Amino acid sequence: MHSHLQPGPLPASMQLASGNALKHFLTIEGLPSTVLKAIMARAEQFVTLPAKQQKKAPLLRGKTVMNLFFENSTRTRVTFEIAAQRLGADVINLDIRTSSATKGESLLDTVRNLEAMNADMFVVRHEHAGAAQFIARYAAPHISVLNAGDGRHAHPTQAMLDMFTIWQNKGDFEHLRVGIVGDVLHSRVARSQIHALTTLRTGEVRVIAPKTLIPTGLEGMGAKVFHTMEEGLRDLDVVIMLRLQRERMQGALLPSEREFFKLYGLTEQRLQLTHPDSIVMHPGPINRGVEISSEVADGERSVILEQVTNGIAVRMAVMSMIMGSTMAGGGA
Amino acid sequence: MHSHLQPGPLPASMQLASGNALKHFLTIEGLPSTVLKAIMARAEQFVTLPAKQQKKAPLLRGKTVMNLFFENSTRTRVTFEIAAQRLGADVINLDIRTSSATKGESLLDTVRNLEAMNADMFVVRHEHAGAAQFIARYAAPHISVLNAGDGRHAHPTQAMLDMFTIWQNKGDFEHLRVGIVGDVLHSRVARSQIHALTTLRTGEVRVIAPKTLIPTGLEGMGAKVFHTMEEGLRDLDVVIMLRLQRERMQGALLPSEREFFKLYGLTEQRLQLTHPDSIVMHPGPINRGVEISSEVADGERSVILEQVTNGIAVRMAVMSMIMGSTMAGGGA
Amino acid sequence: MHSHLQPGPLPASMQLASGNALKHFLTIEGLPSTVLKAIMARAEQFVTLPAKQQKKAPLLRGKTVMNLFFENSTRTRVTFEIAAQRLGADVINLDIRTSSATKGESLLDTVRNLEAMNADMFVVRHEHAGAAQFIARYAAPHISVLNAGDGRHAHPTQAMLDMFTIWQNKGDFEHLRVGIVGDVLHSRVARSQIHALTTLRTGEVRVIAPKTLIPTGLEGMGAKVFHTMEEGLRDLDVVIMLRLQRERMQGALLPSEREFFKLYGLTEQRLQLTHPDSIVMHPGPINRGVEISSEVADGERSVILEQVTNGIAVRMAVMSMIMGSTMAGGGA
Repeated sequence: MHSHLQPGPLPASMQLASGNALKHFLTIEGLPSTVLKAIMARAEQFVTLPAKQQKKAPLLRGKTVMNLFFENSTRTRVTFEIAAQRLGADVINLDIRTSSATKGESLLDTVRNLEAMNADMFVVRHEHAGAAQFIARYAAPHISVLNAGDGRHAHPTQAMLDMFTIWQNKGDFEHLRVGIVGDVLHSRVARSQIHALTTLRTGEVRVIAPKTLIPTGLEGMGAKVFHTMEEGLRDLDVVIMLRLQRERMQGALLPSEREFFKLYGLTEQRLQLTHPDSIVMHPGPINRGVEISSEVADGERSVILEQVTNGIAVRMAVMSMIMGSTMAGGGA
Repeated sequence: MHSHLQPGPLPASMQLASGNALKHFLTIEGLPSTVLKAIMARAEQFVTLPAKQQKKAPLLRGKTVMNLFFENSTRTRVTFEIAAQRLGADVINLDIRTSSATKGESLLDTVRNLEAMNADMFVVRHEHAGAAQFIARYAAPHISVLNAGDGRHAHPTQAMLDMFTIWQNKGDFEHLRVGIVGDVLHSRVARSQIHALTTLRTGEVRVIAPKTLIPTGLEGMGAKVFHTMEEGLRDLDVVIMLRLQRERMQGALLPSEREFFKLYGLTEQRLQLTHPDSIVMHPGPINRGVEISSEVADGERSVILEQVTNGIAVRMAVMSMIMGSTMAGGGA
Repeated sequence: MHSHLQPGPLPASMQLASGNALKHFLTIEGLPSTVLKAIMARAEQFVTLPAKQQKKAPLLRGKTVMNLFFENSTRTRVTFEIAAQRLGADVINLDIRTSSATKGESLLDTVRNLEAMNADMFVVRHEHAGAAQFIARYAAPHISVLNAGDGRHAHPTQAMLDMFTIWQNKGDFEHLRVGIVGDVLHSRVARSQIHALTTLRTGEVRVIAPKTLIPTGLEGMGAKVFHTMEEGLRDLDVVIMLRLQRERMQGALLPSEREFFKLYGLTEQRLQLTHPDSIVMHPGPINRGVEISSEVADGERSVILEQVTNGIAVRMAVMSMIMGSTMAGGGA
């Protein structure tokens, strides 16, 4: 549809500077596992900060982070705002969808103007796939771009906070069976998760969804496709539920929320099919009784709120790596 | 109406930790006078700060204060934002009414998510009585909740800035006659003021309003009810005017703004009835010519702008007490 | 139309304290050239900051800057917000147009309340000419007011960033020919630019526009009027294009955008008429193909993005001069 922005194959060199240092963070695809592991190791340092007297690690003091949200998402914006604040950066929030700043101005002119204000980092949320990549390609050399979700394409920080949460709970990925359940077709989160899981050599990656919600090419990405929970959940170590975009239900792809829950909702009973030590994940906000029962969401195996906490730490990790800072210079 | 949120009797222990340290600040009701006096003593320290080179007292450095405004109130939000900034906190403003973050998400799920981001304090404004209390009851132990106005229930920081203003101008409360004038029925401010005044053993607390705007049970709270200004204003040391919520005028409770002013508006002439040293207060924003004449609002006895200044100091006081900080660690 | 706010002649003493120290920054008109030069010299210090490790010069630490935007302008607001952040100030953004804080409240009552919160500086944007001046006249002595655009009257920081950009590129003004092209009639920017250029003794100041878009009295301000590009551009050292307010085109003043570009658009061909070393300026956002061709906007002589960068430095300069600070106390 928006073919001018469709992301083509992205050379790894576009995200990485010399020595595999992270320059932009646009998509998981193509990044080596060493980079993903470095993000998790850095996040581990930040996740322990809140227990300290102060939560701050002013590695980005004097830097200007601009949240360019072309698509509204208060929740995601807040997580990046908190991460940047705790790193000591100055934060500017730009709701560009409604901004008169951009009336009659092209995306590129907007970017040129903001970089001329000596921004250091753009956190970009956009409804079109490829937007963050487009901005990274044309932005000035001193700018780093962080993709906070672009169309159906990618949401790499969400995928990394999920990986970090799995790693914290389960350790290495090689022996794990991980299943992703729900509307994979429309999910940038699922796409980024699959790339991250396969890069980290996860033992088995499954996707569980009705045929109408499975995109083509999934098996080429290294995922096994299942169409029923009864088959797909069996022996999973990690169950990742996707959020059902209710507005998608209007179309003919699915009959109703009630029907969806009956077929693909995660209940205590179905959870019995998984490994006895399995964990349950969800990117939030959850639709109780649609993707997941309240019993499961609030149950012992749910790590949904750990994901939220880890989301701040992972964003701090990516931001500080991108800015080329080291923990050595920090301290509260 | 919203009976599920109606605040029941609140045990004092819910707001106080051991040693009567303030944990939440939800309502004046039930707090001992020592706590109210401690807030005023702390505010006294902050109110002198602006005269210094810097206004900052970074007692909340490294803390994250979230303004959760379910009901729009720019003015109140700004006072809390300034207070938090001057204490060195990181501030996140969430206009939750319009936030897509909460679409289909329950209040409790929103709270759970925000606390998982390692927030330290929620400043809550909500149209339903009891909302702040509800959040405090279910929030994680590391969170403190500050009520910034909940329905018709309470607005404790407003009441405390009023008390602080009276104390600055008049000293001890025991010998004072204080009158509250206007739409007491719909006023959370009035309710909190009455609790604060009686806790501080004010000599005489009066309420002056038409019968239709007097709630039941007022006299049980220790207030004397008057229906005319001519009787009620006599010999008052402090006159507290309430803001007339113009949208209430639509109903049958009052005939018109003109009529209201004629009966209950504070004019220079009526002010003659009070004590020669009386002061005039109003929570703002004032409706000139509706509750109060411009002559009185801008006159010598008006302390309305002192209230605004004190509002910042009192909010800094409550926030820093809640965070368990002491001035010892501060200094600009 | 809004005659009560129409700015009358402004005594220089209103903007200047003793020793010609800047107290408010409301209009260029009436300021001595020494003040304009001091602003440029100070800006020169700030414009080199971004190259350093940190961009901060915390001269305004502990100060509260309030952006009072009665008219929406995200771009301008952001430039002031960044400038204040880099000076270490606390910033409060108030979108007063939509704020319930001001329902039924007069401009003066709003100002009184905000100053009572111990604000130090108001950055004022208003659709009515004279609004910033009005606020400065009635604000408390400790408040400084910075005009960020008032109706058709003035936009002094925009004019100063333009002067600074000319000075950086061309040095002294005495020998320069500078032309301003476009809708001068509705442009507060043009008015401020002409005052600045004549104060700085620019060799020749021209205005190029159709008769319908030329205000009366221009020649009295020291500008020569031209009605064709062919005459006006000849030998210019500096071409300043104005933004065409598209909403103005509805009226009968101009036939169409296409027609405007044909008559007054800046093309490569027309640029040949100017001095071989001429520079091209535009306050942004540009309307490509309406005022200016893309070729020129992105061409070698364009300094449009330098203007954006200089905009931050000039605002930092004005803010820090107003607060009476010196670079001596600074350093990152």
